[in-house]
Amino acid sequence: MRGDDRGPIGVFDSGVGGLSVVREIRARYPKADILYFGDTARVPYGNKSADTVIRYSIEIADFLVKRGISTLVVACNTSSALALDTLNERMSIPVLGVIAPGARGGLRATRNGNIGLIGTRATVGSGAYAKELRSLDPSVRLHAAACPLFVPLVEEGWSDDPVAEEVARRYLGRLLEIGIDTLILGCTHYPALMGSLQRVVGNGVTLVSSAREAAAALEDGIPRNEGRGIDGTGTLRVFVSDTGTHFQRVGESLLAAPVPLLRKIEEERLVSP
Amino acid sequence: MRGDDRGPIGVFDSGVGGLSVVREIRARYPKADILYFGDTARVPYGNKSADTVIRYSIEIADFLVKRGISTLVVACNTSSALALDTLNERMSIPVLGVIAPGARGGLRATRNGNIGLIGTRATVGSGAYAKELRSLDPSVRLHAAACPLFVPLVEEGWSDDPVAEEVARRYLGRLLEIGIDTLILGCTHYPALMGSLQRVVGNGVTLVSSAREAAAALEDGIPRNEGRGIDGTGTLRVFVSDTGTHFQRVGESLLAAPVPLLRKIEEERLVSP
Repeated sequence: MRGDDRGPIGVFDSGVGGLSVVREIRARYPKADILYFGDTARVPYGNKSADTVIRYSIEIADFLVKRGISTLVVACNTSSALALDTLNERMSIPVLGVIAPGARGGLRATRNGNIGLIGTRATVGSGAYAKELRSLDPSVRLHAAACPLFVPLVEEGWSDDPVAEEVARRYLGRLLEIGIDTLILGCTHYPALMGSLQRVVGNGVTLVSSAREAAAALEDGIPRNEGRGIDGTGTLRVFVSDTGTHFQRVGESLLAAPVPLLRKIEEERLVSP
Repeated sequence: MRGDDRGPIGVFDSGVGGLSVVREIRARYPKADILYFGDTARVPYGNKSADTVIRYSIEIADFLVKRGISTLVVACNTSSALALDTLNERMSIPVLGVIAPGARGGLRATRNGNIGLIGTRATVGSGAYAKELRSLDPSVRLHAAACPLFVPLVEEGWSDDPVAEEVARRYLGRLLEIGIDTLILGCTHYPALMGSLQRVVGNGVTLVSSAREAAAALEDGIPRNEGRGIDGTGTLRVFVSDTGTHFQRVGESLLAAPVPLLRKIEEERLVSP
């Protein structure tokens, strides 16, 4: 049993950030049907323990599978780093994270073998990108920097702002001194910072968006001819575990489109079997 | 039944921030026994709905009451704004929030009647400080600014930093133009920013810490001669709903002392009756 092959694509994230992945999926497959779950009652995952992140991820995956998804995209980097193996063992449908695609994208882009990575403290601390890169090419060197202020800056709407640039200069100084030529954006919020980041790193450094790479990776995970969620009618439904005007506002900038009406799912419905 | 009058003081917060209130309580009552609960699995409350914040607050209050506290300090501004009335109705012990003390402190400090308030989006949006001030003195004017980046800045350890000052200048520009002479720090993380804030607002503006005012207010709520948690042995026990090195590191700067070993309480134990 591999689920309903024609069911929608499930995308989940700890909050609103995964809408940048939805944006990339829709740009590539305009007819894709997507069910999105943002765990806004429990966001952020980045400072939670592995056990907790795994438990939350399973609850949400189960919720989406019950709604007939044909494939699951774990848009959350923290969850991809900590829960992907467990999800793959449990689920009968294909599960795609953002880390392997991001790492592959970084590897494709680098010329000098010095790849930078930015993400939350949890993503960087997990070592998941380093492990993935090592398994693909042991000769490249990964230089990582945790950037906890980037998500709040994006959520505040200060992405394209001198403060964001100043913060980026601080976070990226060490990586630029080392001489990275590629920078993996290991967090779904970061595509919003693309402009500020490019100004700080200069044109000699290629920015690689894990969100975009994950959308591209769907073509391998879900062969077009099977039509897994790709040949639908272009619908997007959004579930959240808590409501707030915040989600709509930030989501619109990440999705580059209006966010459809939210449907709130009580936590009890996630926890109960 | 008013609980055990000699039981410890219960202090809870959505996360680590309330340790600034603990610091002020201990500075004032060195022999106070304190049980602290940081809801680190579900932090932050600031972007959650009122229903959710109320539910979480009741769970934690019940947990602490079962452990024999003699009084409850709601150190979290969001919870004080949204859940204090409900908690007061439910609990048989005195419940103290941070908003009324903060508002009274602001009123005491102002000369020109223009009081500024900074806090999370939820605290400011709740209008709780404005309501409290109006009830105390309808002639004062409250000018509020939500400062969502301050908490992440404190948590990053960039409190005393040019970036914090630049962000503060941006947030406070409008309030300074209006001519506030008093600024209420309506968030338990903000005492860490005291230095940066004072440099930005100048010496003409008095900073009022809700954390310090709440500690002072314990003297009214808990008369000394009853000894409610004040005449103990100066113990501090810390419960969290999720662990992480983060709590110890940030907590130490807010508590101005080492944070004692944490005890993790599973969420199930909070939710179950």
